Parts: sequence; structure tokens; C-alpha cells
Amino acid sequence: MNNLLKENLSKLSKLDFKLFNKDFLLNSDKTDDELMAAELTAEIFNELHRLGKSFKVFDSGLGISIFRDNSTRTRFSFASAVNALGLGLSDLDEVKSQIAHGETVCESANMISFLAQTIGIRDDMYLGEGNKYMQEVSDAVEEGYQKGVLHFRPSVVNLQCDIDHPTQTLADLLKLKDYFGSFENLKGKKLAMTWAYSPSYGKPLSVPQGIISLMTRFGMDVTLAYPEGYDLIPEVIEQAKGYNSNFKVLNSMEEAFKDADVVYPKSWAPFYVMQRRTDLLKKSDKDGLKELEKECLANNGKHKDWECDEKKMKLTKKGEALYMHCLPADITDVSCKEGEVSKNVFEKYRIHTYQEASFKPFVIAAMIYLTRMENPVKKLEEIIK
Amino acid sequence: MNNLLKENLSKLSKLDFKLFNKDFLLNSDKTDDELMAAELTAEIFNELHRLGKSFKVFDSGLGISIFRDNSTRTRFSFASAVNALGLGLSDLDEVKSQIAHGETVCESANMISFLAQTIGIRDDMYLGEGNKYMQEVSDAVEEGYQKGVLHFRPSVVNLQCDIDHPTQTLADLLKLKDYFGSFENLKGKKLAMTWAYSPSYGKPLSVPQGIISLMTRFGMDVTLAYPEGYDLIPEVIEQAKGYNSNFKVLNSMEEAFKDADVVYPKSWAPFYVMQRRTDLLKKSDKDGLKELEKECLANNGKHKDWECDEKKMKLTKKGEALYMHCLPADITDVSCKEGEVSKNVFEKYRIHTYQEASFKPFVIAAMIYLTRMENPVKKLEEIIK
Amino acid sequence: MNNLLKENLSKLSKLDFKLFNKDFLLNSDKTDDELMAAELTAEIFNELHRLGKSFKVFDSGLGISIFRDNSTRTRFSFASAVNALGLGLSDLDEVKSQIAHGETVCESANMISFLAQTIGIRDDMYLGEGNKYMQEVSDAVEEGYQKGVLHFRPSVVNLQCDIDHPTQTLADLLKLKDYFGSFENLKGKKLAMTWAYSPSYGKPLSVPQGIISLMTRFGMDVTLAYPEGYDLIPEVIEQAKGYNSNFKVLNSMEEAFKDADVVYPKSWAPFYVMQRRTDLLKKSDKDGLKELEKECLANNGKHKDWECDEKKMKLTKKGEALYMHCLPADITDVSCKEGEVSKNVFEKYRIHTYQEASFKPFVIAAMIYLTRMENPVKKLEEIIK
Repeated sequence: MNNLLKENLSKLSKLDFKLFNKDFLLNSDKTDDELMAAELTAEIFNELHRLGKSFKVFDSGLGISIFRDNSTRTRFSFASAVNALGLGLSDLDEVKSQIAHGETVCESANMISFLAQTIGIRDDMYLGEGNKYMQEVSDAVEEGYQKGVLHFRPSVVNLQCDIDHPTQTLADLLKLKDYFGSFENLKGKKLAMTWAYSPSYGKPLSVPQGIISLMTRFGMDVTLAYPEGYDLIPEVIEQAKGYNSNFKVLNSMEEAFKDADVVYPKSWAPFYVMQRRTDLLKKSDKDGLKELEKECLANNGKHKDWECDEKKMKLTKKGEALYMHCLPADITDVSCKEGEVSKNVFEKYRIHTYQEASFKPFVIAAMIYLTRMENPVKKLEEIIK
Repeated sequence: MNNLLKENLSKLSKLDFKLFNKDFLLNSDKTDDELMAAELTAEIFNELHRLGKSFKVFDSGLGISIFRDNSTRTRFSFASAVNALGLGLSDLDEVKSQIAHGETVCESANMISFLAQTIGIRDDMYLGEGNKYMQEVSDAVEEGYQKGVLHFRPSVVNLQCDIDHPTQTLADLLKLKDYFGSFENLKGKKLAMTWAYSPSYGKPLSVPQGIISLMTRFGMDVTLAYPEGYDLIPEVIEQAKGYNSNFKVLNSMEEAFKDADVVYPKSWAPFYVMQRRTDLLKKSDKDGLKELEKECLANNGKHKDWECDEKKMKLTKKGEALYMHCLPADITDVSCKEGEVSKNVFEKYRIHTYQEASFKPFVIAAMIYLTRMENPVKKLEEIIK
Repeated sequence: MNNLLKENLSKLSKLDFKLFNKDFLLNSDKTDDELMAAELTAEIFNELHRLGKSFKVFDSGLGISIFRDNSTRTRFSFASAVNALGLGLSDLDEVKSQIAHGETVCESANMISFLAQTIGIRDDMYLGEGNKYMQEVSDAVEEGYQKGVLHFRPSVVNLQCDIDHPTQTLADLLKLKDYFGSFENLKGKKLAMTWAYSPSYGKPLSVPQGIISLMTRFGMDVTLAYPEGYDLIPEVIEQAKGYNSNFKVLNSMEEAFKDADVVYPKSWAPFYVMQRRTDLLKKSDKDGLKELEKECLANNGKHKDWECDEKKMKLTKKGEALYMHCLPADITDVSCKEGEVSKNVFEKYRIHTYQEASFKPFVIAAMIYLTRMENPVKKLEEIIK
């Protein structure tokens, strides 16, 4: 057993967490110890995989994915996690199913879960809907389990919703731990979570919201910056303030970058736009949606200077802040004419962003593992031995 | 080994059945002992799963699904069964394949089966076609196996056709066994299989046809009731009469419900409509199809009183008959304005219907197991020990 | 251990090959020993499967497929191979992914590969593009592996490109070995790879190109025949000449069939047409494409006499040459009015063509195995014991 495994296992055994037969829906629902348990377990899985050691804990059973929005990396991360744990992936394609016929969420959730251990859901398009839907699925399988319909209680894992993106932000946190050497070292480090210009509109709020909530909680001095009007959900801002009194909100990318140890420049649509969009989508008002898109792109267009370029990077700590992104980034002259980040800056940190993403399958595996194992620490000890 | 496992294993060892290298296409092709073997094995698998014990009998190999109609629960039931037995699921998506290019069924069936152990097929849209197609696939893999193209002979499992729906009805039968305590107790119990109003049209005949054939055979006094004109395939009616002289056909929902121990109210399209529809679909006659739909919905509309409501339920044995449905049901005020069943009745039996559905993965697993194992009883003994 | 296993293992241990952490992109990149290693391993896997013995070497991990063209048999062959080795299949559906958003191949390839062992790609539509894309994916995962993004280096397997179709032609070669008794016996045998009439156009060049390159190399006297104008990529012709001085190009089907031991009549689109088509596809010039199709079908129509019928078969060695096809064939009076092969000829060799296809899953498994195992021979010895 190498040092990392030994150390993480030891830390894990001292934490107080009860995740068995629970879900992983919002980081804000979890205690510090529960989040730390997920991080330590993910890091153990990552290390085991690097060493070519198996952490297959299931003999059979399904891992179900429900993607209500396109996805590559989350899709493959979930598939990888499920496979590594010994489950078979089953994707619920709502188009091919009979679910549109007025079937209740409660019924569908039970019908797919007879042999399931986990259900991963991505639903980030409608403000006020995504997390609610996940909660409904959770309630349904809980009832099914309590009433003897389901032999096991599959856990629901949030693969991105309208509020949070826990699998992404916990992977980001692992990257930060890896980069700065320890979770302790993150305390007092300055992270700039900023809006950035993109030629597309309607990008979800979950990443910036998740980052400011999680990183403040782990002791980082987080600065949120965006052009006037590009607000996040107000409750999340309040939450971040509660976690860390050094949390600040600014309207200047440059100011946010000043002396930052880490920058996370990423586009999103303003909160109020997402609300209007949700209303229009519900009404299937195509003309309204087109109008909104036009208006928003015009608005975005006023902020093309919100690009993470070499000049702005020079403002950061020693000009060498870590650049982060959940990918795919809108890269100027690569994926678009003008985007979130300049070609040179992205290229300098490209491998770092890939490594950041590489933690995600292990974070998801940890979430499934901790919510499905009755004695997760004991079981991990057995696996490692 | 608990009592249920011991008892079922003992019963199983006394049955006379030869299912190895065979298919599961129609219940009417099977002997009583063969059907009972499927039920007992399914119940063993269900119990093993409840106990967290594996019944993975394959190390590798494919379980192939071909869905020619949308499906959620059957899709997931098949995926679950295949996974629990240790096979990998491969869905043949006829759109993504080259099969439309005039390739023969015989060729396709062999091309996908080199490492397959089973092929599950759903094809219920065209009267006279679905089961025929399954038989063609069966003939093809039989020839491939005999001529050395295939090392193993995958079994074909009917996941719903134009005639029968064996995985559904055998799951229904397990629910009845569970509810009434034993297969013996079903003898003389009164089951009302009735048509019910639905705002949609073209629902398959396979469930009512399968129910009247199977439940008469297991000693139940089955009454079939439907509005004049909503006939099933005549041969199936004759079959049911042959199985049980107490089988009756009526044109009144109320009369059928009188003193019933079990009611199964479910919509279907009349036999002659399905024939016309099949002809129109073959000709791709869109106008004709629209006309037919209009005509049928108007006809359905005359029978909105065929709803399973509390008043009609009061007519059943002590007002407490078991309500069954293959799901999803058209529930008044839930999934539609006026439907097959009232909100209150459905809610009272909702968990029962979920449990009914929960047997399906295990029934499918039993069908695959029995058709692929040379010594299924011996192997089961080993698994249980 | 039976004779075939013993013999192949012994031969394998004497070969000089280094495929670990490499790809399988073009047969022409491989040494004779490397190709022979793939054949011997595939035959071992085929035999193990026949005996019901497992060759599952992975505990978990993904096998990723990327199909940029429709496919049944290659799709299922890859799924079967991946499953037999113990990997989970994950299909990258480029429509459901975010890849269209200007993401680089390099990024996508890394994002899906964190827990992958192999990536199978089919990309045969654009001349000059398919193999290039595979090479890009290969470069990307190589970089990811070298820079610590990926713990393992997934191998890229060519499931058909614009140049070659190694999994098909190596399966064809195994069929020939099986038919003629040994690889030695192939030396001097006459194979006629000929164009044949088809009512469709735009069929890829990869099979004829792959066949003439591979079979000349294994000592067969290959004759390529096609109507004037239906040329293959010039470089491949040069290659075949280099492998075997008995390689000939003719413009007569009859002449090519004369005394042939094997005939492989198959339609393809002329090289220059594929170039024009590629240009038009890139420009999304629908009218141009329609025009080209019309022109080509008219051209094809002049060569309806290029059908493999009984009369032409009589010209072959004792009138009994082996007929081969990669399937599906255009069969006169079966899948089309006038096609590549007459009904009678195809029916006579139908089972042979199925057996030919049956080797493909094992060839793919061998390619994955050899590129992912550090000590493939030693591991095979363990498996067989």
C-alpha cells in the first residue's frame, strides 16, 4: 500500500459521514466530512486505476443515465465510473421510451430501477426544474424501496442541474489539491471565478454557482466577476458569503485577476435570461426564443473584452495563476473567432485542463460507492489489500 | 438456503422440461411443466436478488435486443436480466444498421449472433408479422448453429408480439401467486380481463390474448369482456376455451367485475382494426391511417363508461378484487382527462402494479437461463449453495 | 490443450512482434510477423470460444466505438470482441455529444479515454479523411498518455477507413487458411478480386484495396479486374505490385475468373468519383451530389454483365472456386433486381460467406489484445491452461 492510499484511508476512517442509501444532489446538502469523504475516495480510486488495480465492488446491477442535454465528457465519465465499479450502463433515452405518454416520474423511476444501483441525471436546461426533477426521482425510488417494490435503493447522482454541478466542481477541487499539494494549502488562496465572452448563449449557471459555493467552503478567497446584469441565482451568492467572509463580487475581470492564484473564466447566461428562457421553452414560443437569443448575443457582444488573454494573465500572482475550465472552452481562433480564452493561454494550460477533467470519472465512482456501500471504509481497506 | 429457494428447487427437479437450445416465443408452444419451470426459476432469481446473491452464470457473451416499437420497462427489464446473467447488452438499432438495404433476416440474424447467447425481440405493430419475424430469426440461428457458423445457439425471447406477451403474462402470474399464496390457490379464482376506454388507439392485443390463454390454463375462471366489435384474434379465444370450460366472453364490464377476485381492465384496438391498420401501414397510406384513427377514436369515444372506477370495483368480491395492469395505464385526471382507470382506484393499487412489473426482469432472466443451460437444475443448486 | 491451440501458441512464440501500446491502423504499417501474430491469436480466440472457454483478460475498462457510417456486422463484431475481453462498450454518438461545437479531435479523444483500453473507428466516407482522423486520435491519446492525462494508452483500431479494412481482410485471410488448410497452402493460389455491378453507388474502396495488398503479401497470385475507369487509389496498386510480382490488373471479369481458386466480386465507386464526392460533401453541394450519383449510376448501368453468375463460375478452377464477399452482397432477385452475384451462386456459398464473417469478432479481439498486453504470449499460455 503506497503513501497516498495509506494516508487517504486513514483520513477517511476519522471522518463522520453517513451516505449509504442517500443521494448526491447538491454539495450544499452535504457536510464538510461528507464532501471530504467523496474527495478522498475519488483520489483512492484514481490511484488504484493508475496502478492497474481494480475497485470493482459490484458483481452485477445497472447504472442508469438520463441525459436531458447533450454531453460527451460527463456521459463518458459516468459510463467509466459505472463500469469500473462493475455495473452495466443503461441509458434511458426518453425519445425511445414511452415516457412522453403522460407517465409519472414516480412510475418511470421505479420501472427502470428493479436491478439498478444508481441513476445519474443531467438536467440543466430549465431554471427551477433540473434539481427538482432529480429530487422527484429520489423520492420515487425511496418510496419504491420502502414499500418493497425495489430490493435495493439506487442512489441519484447529479450530473449537472440548474443549480449545481457537483461532479465537476469536486473534480476541480481534486485538481486544485493536486496542484497546490494539499487541501490545507488551498486556504487563503485566491480564486477568480469570472464570466467570459462567448459567441453562444444560454450556457448553464451550474459551474460558476458550484465553484463559488464549494471553493469558499474549502477556505479559498473567491472573487466572482461578471459584467453588470450577468447575475447568478441570488441564493447561491448568499450561500457563498456564509461560507467565507472573503467572498467578493466585482464587475471587472482585470480586478478579479489581480494576484489570483487560480482563474476560472467561463461564459454563462444571466439568471434573469434563464428565467425568461425557461418560460419561453415551456410555452414552446419559438419566436420568443429567437428574439431572446438575438438580444442576448447582442448583449454578450458588448463584452468581448472579457477574454482571458496573456495580458490579463500577467495581472495574476507572478503572472502564473492556474487557468481552469470545465471544457469545452470557446477558444479564440481555435473553436471560434472570439471566445472565452486566447489560443496561447489555453495552449499553455491545455494539459492542466485535461488533467482537471480526468478526475471526474473517479469523483462519480466515489459518489456511487459511498451512497451504495454500507461499510465503505472497511470495504476500501479490503480492496486496497 | 431459505424455504422459498428449497421448495422451488425441489419442485423444479420434479418437472419434465427440455428448453435447452430452444426459444421462448409463445406460451401456447410450451408444456405446463415448461411454463412452471420458468415461473419457479424466476421466483428463485427474484429471491436471490432480494438476498443480494448473484446468479451470474455467463462469463461473457452478448444479449441482443431488437425493439421495433418504443419501450421503457421491457427495455430495462431485458437489460437487467441480461446483465444479471453476466451478458453484455447490444441493442440492434435498425436505423443505424445496414439492414434496410434489402438484407435478408437470415443473414442479419447470423451476423449479430457470433458471440450471442440470446436475442430478445419486440415486434407488436403489425398483425401477422411480429411472431413470424421472431420465428424467422429463430430458424436463421438454428441453421447457423447446425452448419457451424455459430458456436452457440442463441435463444430467441419474445418481448411482445402481435399474438402473445409471455414475459408480461408470466410476471402477472407470479404476482397472482404471490398475492394468493400459491399457484394452487389460483384454481377457481375469478379473473375479469376487460377492455377499458382510452383516448389513444391502436394498442396491441398481446396482453389480453396472453392473459386469457395463460390464466385459464392455470385454473382461473377467466371472463373476457369488451364492447361489441372489440374482438381479439379468434384462434386465441378458441384456445382459451380449450384450456378451461369456465372461460366466458361478455359485453359488459359490470357483469365481468361481479364477484371477480382479480380485474385487469385495459384498452386495445379491435382485431379487424389492427388488420386494416397493418394493410395501410404496409402501403404507407398516411391518409388512410389518419382516417382509420379518426374513426376508431370516435368508436372508442362511445365507450367512455368502460372505466375502472370505485363504483365498479364495489361489484367485485367483497369490493376488494386485485386490480392489475401491465403499465403505463391511462389514468383519469393523471395521464389523461378520461381513461382506463380512475385516479382513486389506481392510487389504491399503485404499489401492487409496480410489484407486478418488478417480476418481469426475473421472468426474462429465467427464460434466457432455461434456454441456454444444459443442466439448469443442477446449475441452480450450485448457484444457491 | 488441443492441437490447434498448441500449434498456434508455438508459432506465436517464435514470431518477432511489438504491438503493445501501438495501434492497428493499416496492414501496410505492420510487419509480416505482426500480421501473423494477429491471425494466430484470432484463431486461438475463435477456438477457445468454440470450446466455451473464456479469454476475458480485463477486469473492467471501456472499449469505445466511433461509427461515422452505418454498420451492423462491424458494430456487433466490435461489441462482441470488447465484451469477450472483459471491457464495457461505449459508443460515441457524435450527434448526442457536444463535439460539433468546434471541439478539437485532440480534446475529445482524451476526454473519452480516461478509463478506455481501445477505440474502434469506422470512417470510410471521405477519401483522404478516414485514416487521417484515426491517426489524429492516435496522436491525441499518445500525447495524453505521455503527459500523464491518461493512465493507460488506448489502442486505436481501424474498423474501416478510406484506404484499408484490416479487420475484414484479416478475417477473409483466416477463412482462406481454414478453407485451404494452412497459410502455406495459399502460396500460388489464384485470387480474382473483381468489380461487380451494383444498383447503388459510392461503395468504399477499402475492401478491394485491402484484399489486393494483403493477399499478395501472403503469397497469393492476385488478379484485380474492373471496367475501365473504376480505378483504385494508385498508391495501393503500386504496393500490391511490390508485394508480389504475379499481381495483375485486367479489364475483364471472365479473364480474371479463369482458373481462379478464389473469386471476390464486389462493387466499388471509382477512385476519381470518390474524390469528387468528397469535395461535394465538404461543400454540402446537394445538387452536385445528386448529379454525380445520376452520372455514376448511369455508368454502372453499362456494366451489368459484371455479375458473378454460374456461367462465369464455370471458368474458375474445376468450376469450383471459393466465392467470397464481405457482406451484405447485392444479390440478383434477392436484395435487388440485378446485382453483384446471381441468386444460385450466392446460395451455394452462403454459409461460406457467413463463416468468413464469423472470424471478424476474433480478429478484432486479437488486435485489441495484442496492442494492450505487455506479454501477450505468456498471458495466452495462462489463459489456455
